[in-house]
Amino acid sequence: MAKSVAEHRADVEELIRYAARASLAGTESVALEAAYGRVLAADVAAPMSLPPFANSQMDGYAVRSAETSGGADLAVAATIPAGYAAPALPPGSAAPIMTGAMLPEGADAVVPIEEAVPDTFLTERDGHTVRLPESPAGRFIRAVGSDIAAGSLALTAGTVLKAPQLGLLAALGLATADVRPRLRVLLLSTGDEVVAAGGRLDAGQIYDANNTMLAASLREAGCEVVESRILADAAPEFRGLLDAELRRQRADLVLTSGGISKGAFEVVRLALEPEGVAFAPVAMQPGGPQGAGRIGGAVFLGFPGNPVSCLVSFEMFLRPALTSVLGTPAPRTVLRVPLAEAADSPAAKHQVRRGHYDGGRVRLVGGAESHLVHAMAQSNALVHLPAGVEHTEAGQDVEIWLL
Amino acid sequence: MAKSVAEHRADVEELIRYAARASLAGTESVALEAAYGRVLAADVAAPMSLPPFANSQMDGYAVRSAETSGGADLAVAATIPAGYAAPALPPGSAAPIMTGAMLPEGADAVVPIEEAVPDTFLTERDGHTVRLPESPAGRFIRAVGSDIAAGSLALTAGTVLKAPQLGLLAALGLATADVRPRLRVLLLSTGDEVVAAGGRLDAGQIYDANNTMLAASLREAGCEVVESRILADAAPEFRGLLDAELRRQRADLVLTSGGISKGAFEVVRLALEPEGVAFAPVAMQPGGPQGAGRIGGAVFLGFPGNPVSCLVSFEMFLRPALTSVLGTPAPRTVLRVPLAEAADSPAAKHQVRRGHYDGGRVRLVGGAESHLVHAMAQSNALVHLPAGVEHTEAGQDVEIWLL
Repeated sequence: MAKSVAEHRADVEELIRYAARASLAGTESVALEAAYGRVLAADVAAPMSLPPFANSQMDGYAVRSAETSGGADLAVAATIPAGYAAPALPPGSAAPIMTGAMLPEGADAVVPIEEAVPDTFLTERDGHTVRLPESPAGRFIRAVGSDIAAGSLALTAGTVLKAPQLGLLAALGLATADVRPRLRVLLLSTGDEVVAAGGRLDAGQIYDANNTMLAASLREAGCEVVESRILADAAPEFRGLLDAELRRQRADLVLTSGGISKGAFEVVRLALEPEGVAFAPVAMQPGGPQGAGRIGGAVFLGFPGNPVSCLVSFEMFLRPALTSVLGTPAPRTVLRVPLAEAADSPAAKHQVRRGHYDGGRVRLVGGAESHLVHAMAQSNALVHLPAGVEHTEAGQDVEIWLL
Repeated sequence: MAKSVAEHRADVEELIRYAARASLAGTESVALEAAYGRVLAADVAAPMSLPPFANSQMDGYAVRSAETSGGADLAVAATIPAGYAAPALPPGSAAPIMTGAMLPEGADAVVPIEEAVPDTFLTERDGHTVRLPESPAGRFIRAVGSDIAAGSLALTAGTVLKAPQLGLLAALGLATADVRPRLRVLLLSTGDEVVAAGGRLDAGQIYDANNTMLAASLREAGCEVVESRILADAAPEFRGLLDAELRRQRADLVLTSGGISKGAFEVVRLALEPEGVAFAPVAMQPGGPQGAGRIGGAVFLGFPGNPVSCLVSFEMFLRPALTSVLGTPAPRTVLRVPLAEAADSPAAKHQVRRGHYDGGRVRLVGGAESHLVHAMAQSNALVHLPAGVEHTEAGQDVEIWLL
């Protein structure tokens, strides 16, 4: 009896929670410009108020509101540019003030330059007066702490840092952020047939796509790929490398592709099944064979070797677990949209097809086979034909995940 | 008369098309592992077929289909692992074959191991026979070129490279990709009041958020920030730096924040208005003041200095232009959802508020003021209250852009 997709997803999430224990408990201080996409390790309290001083929201004249009653002619005081300490406002006067400039002591309102007569900036030294309309107290003034007060909670632990959050930290004068260490992943593609791009193919060999795809997907998800290798079908070599890596404590997660199905030379299964790693089939197509367990202090996940199976496994199991446990990456957008054509799928399995969503309907791209990398590269969505469904009509709604 | 949002967006797109002329015409070869998110500069033709040789889709037995008629006992031939040249299949025999292994000459079908009697892999040297069911020609065989044929179009120019596309290039043996050079941006935050995070604030000064936010947004959008500086309110210094940078031909786009409104010390406007750069107000709130034009061979865009105005300007004008002209970043997801509360907005302006979308409704976060960085950092959507609208009822649908 195969595991359901939901059962395996829950198992993977539990394993990733274990793999992420160091990331969830740790802290790393990084410069703001390197912190994009990282996740805050702790709450951040505001070290200062924003704004730090009362300032003008407009280019205009700073006034005492009581002195504008019914409109008034006021003497022009010294100009207050942004960036400087403002002298107190003399009674009976109005000070030209720029947006963001400090409100002078005594002033409690700003009249926009457009409402002044004349509507240009006059200077103090010529003894000018300016006519200004009645303005209530507080008008066009940004009070100290009106955005955030010193000591209050600015951002909570677990927040993903993107432009607005980084902007807030910068505005608070913080040049670094304390973020969770990245999950460290050791990536191994297995098989005597697999050669890295750029190498020479012998008869029967193919170029590896899995390490490239998984490394891109893992980095996009906020993980660190500590090493990426291709290993031949030799169990002792596989086990030896794994042990060496684990001794060095470099990886939280070991992620392999290939070597876990029913063949006679399944290096990953042969090496790890004796140690209690489970290689239970999941009722999914592609991506049925799956390995999952712990080795030493690390977590092991084994994906099938066909590139489409491998990427579907990442999207179906590992990516949602990372989102749930570590808060990044953002979940895939899920839509229900009409299928452009009829499709058959195995009743006993959750079939994941590749599709192209055009904003209205989704059409299938390529067949169900797991070697169709070209078709996958043309698609922008995964199309779900769940277990229990054998036939879907054209026009029927299906769940899709936007890639 | 202020420009409409649509008019200014069209102007910015035209300017970005000019700024991007080197990116659109150029090519840069990058290793696949550094090519994530980059845009293909040219069509890629497949240098080889995928699969490169006929191979087995299953772990099982390779057979001549004609010899399985009605079911047959066949002599077990030499095992064919993946990764090696396969010897021809002797007549009257079945060769154990692994998934992905080369189909031997003579064979035209594969019987899955589960259908064999016994359903385990037997070896040639013991003189075993295996009972196999009738299997049609072509069964569980992946034909040469069934994914893509050598010479045909693999990916088109303009494709954004993510995991599936990088996987296809790797599968085709390509270790590098020819991508468009990034748009090079010079980022200048202006104002005597602005100090970089980590520095010391004097009276009347604030920390800069704009360079941090714009750099994060630009990098997320696939641009290169060649330099990021804070400049005081001194027009000659501003103009001098700009000229030096442009002489070095380092920037395609000069993006400033601050110094473009109606104050008396507007460094950017004072320096560039005499040279024909337009500083026309746009009917938008926040982000009304906008500068746009050409300086030398580069394009200039001037955003207002308040952090919220600045980020809204990026989202409303520059980001859509980059998407349209360069193909990256992906457009923001646009939804129409009910507003959780009633809102007033100026009829003459397109108001952009910050909001939090919970999957059902969107509620406004913070007020309309452009200094509310904390509120912005709590939001996950921009909420559009377009020109012509003065009041929106609770429950009424509004357009939101997911951040």
